[in-house]
Amino acid sequence: MADKVQVLRETDDDARLAARLLVRAARYMALAAIDPDTGYPSASRVLTATDLDGVPVILVSDLSTHTRALLADGRCSLLAGEPGKGDPLAHPRITLHCDARPVARDKPAHARIRERFLDRHPKAELYVDFADFRFFRLVPKSASMNGGFGRAFALPGSDLVIALPADSDQWLDLQKRLKSMTNAANDLAGRFGIDKTHRWRIGGIDPAGLDLVAGDVQQRHEFGRIMSSAEEAMHYIFQSPN
Amino acid sequence: MADKVQVLRETDDDARLAARLLVRAARYMALAAIDPDTGYPSASRVLTATDLDGVPVILVSDLSTHTRALLADGRCSLLAGEPGKGDPLAHPRITLHCDARPVARDKPAHARIRERFLDRHPKAELYVDFADFRFFRLVPKSASMNGGFGRAFALPGSDLVIALPADSDQWLDLQKRLKSMTNAANDLAGRFGIDKTHRWRIGGIDPAGLDLVAGDVQQRHEFGRIMSSAEEAMHYIFQSPN
Repeated sequence: MADKVQVLRETDDDARLAARLLVRAARYMALAAIDPDTGYPSASRVLTATDLDGVPVILVSDLSTHTRALLADGRCSLLAGEPGKGDPLAHPRITLHCDARPVARDKPAHARIRERFLDRHPKAELYVDFADFRFFRLVPKSASMNGGFGRAFALPGSDLVIALPADSDQWLDLQKRLKSMTNAANDLAGRFGIDKTHRWRIGGIDPAGLDLVAGDVQQRHEFGRIMSSAEEAMHYIFQSPN
Repeated sequence: MADKVQVLRETDDDARLAARLLVRAARYMALAAIDPDTGYPSASRVLTATDLDGVPVILVSDLSTHTRALLADGRCSLLAGEPGKGDPLAHPRITLHCDARPVARDKPAHARIRERFLDRHPKAELYVDFADFRFFRLVPKSASMNGGFGRAFALPGSDLVIALPADSDQWLDLQKRLKSMTNAANDLAGRFGIDKTHRWRIGGIDPAGLDLVAGDVQQRHEFGRIMSSAEEAMHYIFQSPN
């Protein structure tokens, strides 16, 4: 363990921000769960979005092995951060250790997560309401981020999540309003210094920031503080100086 | 389980070939192992190559959690097949359930695996001989391949591996000879109908086929049968009609 500690760097605010962006920006991750038949760990690919508090969410079929696995034992892990060209180990990635919590269809959380997931993955509209599909929240307990050779950080789960806002309905209303406004996504991209050459749409808004999506690309603007209400966020994003 | 079987297609030779190519072509995979401290499954990214028999091999540091995990419990899983553009779930991928076997440095297998791994990942030369690095063979017990929506297949590990050839030294000699021949890689690409616009190098040769590598790209030519010796393979690849 002494050796292990030696290779870790001290976690600072830059590392925490990089970790949150890796999780928020992922379109998909590798999920590791424990196969209920064999006890082997099992890796599969899942589409991901995040809930208002930054907790990753997945939409999976009860017919799949990973769903049976998570229902039998919620201990799981996510790997986020995809390599581009060149050395795969030079690209930042993060491993989250999580507890999986199924989201019941009749709970308010379901409507919220459904809306946010579909804004991230519009094609999932085709199967999101099938009887055998369900959402899980994968609540991070701890994480280890590797920012490239010699840049490893250990983080507690609390570095990746914020409190679920009490006014969660208002946040969804704000998200719907932003989506209904012509050009809002590209206007906000300009306002927050995000590359305007994409045709952005609103991926989601939460107390810590705003996600813009364009095809396979996602960009996040972090507010730099936690907004105390959806109303405060609305004032902030429309009154920010250019 | 009845439901699970319903969504599986019958495995045919095309599926077996696709599965082998997914594993052989991977530069990296997601590894799932069981964290020795917490019992949680843990997903991380590893560079991969394959041994002569098609078994995936990894090179990892004793300082990393996944190495401690595999040494404590060899049950693990690999996810191969990376998405390109568009829907990540429309791209083929395969989950292998494996038993991890450390490769002792003083065994002949080590020299063979070291050579094949470095031909796949030349930059690993920088750390392959560090005292804290070691190879594992991850022997597939079973696999599930997902070729896109509604195209799922279950495969036994035996569909992914062949017998280790008795003349394994000759196979390495053949690989070294091919590497030393000017233009051999591009000549073989032409002979086997592989895109010649890349500048290929020899990634590896084994009784079932030949791997060519160019930067981030790998192409495999499967011989269509298992060569009984390195000599037979040499005759085959140099006498194949254009």
